[in-house]
Amino acid sequence: MGRSSDARERILAAAQSLIEQRGYSALGVAEICKAASVPKGSFYYFFDSKEELALTVLDEHWAGRRDAWTGILGGDRPPLERLRRLFEATEAEQRAGQQTCGTVSGCLFGNLTLEMSNQTEAIRARLQQIFEAQVELVEVVVEEARERGEVTVPDSHEAARSVVAQLEGQVLFAKLYNDTHRLDALWANCLALLGVTAPGVTREGASLV
Amino acid sequence: MGRSSDARERILAAAQSLIEQRGYSALGVAEICKAASVPKGSFYYFFDSKEELALTVLDEHWAGRRDAWTGILGGDRPPLERLRRLFEATEAEQRAGQQTCGTVSGCLFGNLTLEMSNQTEAIRARLQQIFEAQVELVEVVVEEARERGEVTVPDSHEAARSVVAQLEGQVLFAKLYNDTHRLDALWANCLALLGVTAPGVTREGASLV
Repeated sequence: MGRSSDARERILAAAQSLIEQRGYSALGVAEICKAASVPKGSFYYFFDSKEELALTVLDEHWAGRRDAWTGILGGDRPPLERLRRLFEATEAEQRAGQQTCGTVSGCLFGNLTLEMSNQTEAIRARLQQIFEAQVELVEVVVEEARERGEVTVPDSHEAARSVVAQLEGQVLFAKLYNDTHRLDALWANCLALLGVTAPGVTREGASLV
Repeated sequence: MGRSSDARERILAAAQSLIEQRGYSALGVAEICKAASVPKGSFYYFFDSKEELALTVLDEHWAGRRDAWTGILGGDRPPLERLRRLFEATEAEQRAGQQTCGTVSGCLFGNLTLEMSNQTEAIRARLQQIFEAQVELVEVVVEEARERGEVTVPDSHEAARSVVAQLEGQVLFAKLYNDTHRLDALWANCLALLGVTAPGVTREGASLV
């Protein structure tokens, strides 16, 4: 088993699952190896430390999320419709997680930000990069909507930050109440934060014409 | 020392400080007792378990915060001005914490929500009560503003939830970037989320007339 071709992937999958369930600090390498069914020596063949593992979990999770965000926020649909789809996808993802684990596990990046950013500068820096990338992906769409005269915010970057902050805040509540319906307000709140003016877009979430 | 009159307070203060720095899971009772300079037996004289300690830390912290929130959100000033003062107080509190500890420690309730709500039902329930109380304190002010025709939101409770969610999301970013200026957007975002119509209130944060 040990250094078999999929041992690294098993370690990463076990680590992500355990971090989502119980956070990072309380986890030990032995527990991760047991959950991954790999010997401890195998862990140190792939990773120098638990911190390096955590950074790799963040990178791999963001690689998947970034592809999803890029797919949803790119394309030819009207910009605000693409933003709305991001919130729908977030709710669907949290609902799927809840069905698998029994509880809403929240956002791995938000969870680790509040748990770890003051303890490990390497993890703080990586989480900053990930959130900056999220804000930039949203900013491009906000700027496009602004050029179309559909939103009134003066600063697309600041507005994108606020949209992502609202997303993190509502995901926190979805986790606290184990209830994905807490995410229902995201679209209306996004429109409010962006000062939406486009005809056909209502705060109740009606589709764009 | 042990069961001296201030041992319980010393344990609580040490526990709150350590939870803010390093979270709850990674802490041990021995470490808390060492930081509080009390023998371990003293801990179990006051608390049955680490979980009971955490619940007491939450209760005592919320008792202080609730008094502050009630003071700020009550009184005779116009309702939106009282809301603005809540954000100013939040920024001042995070700035003071940063000056003491070197880093923005964020919101103890938000931190423990993301770290613990899926692990301990007792802590989840207590955090739900605390956030419900926050939302209700904000809701009363939003409703007052609504009756004065200064905000346009259809549902004061939902709007208050979104305001608190935005607060938690921006505090998360303030912690991530160790930068309290991340909270500068709170007032403008609150006005946007509430659909503010009052004359004299601008999204740039100008004071009420």
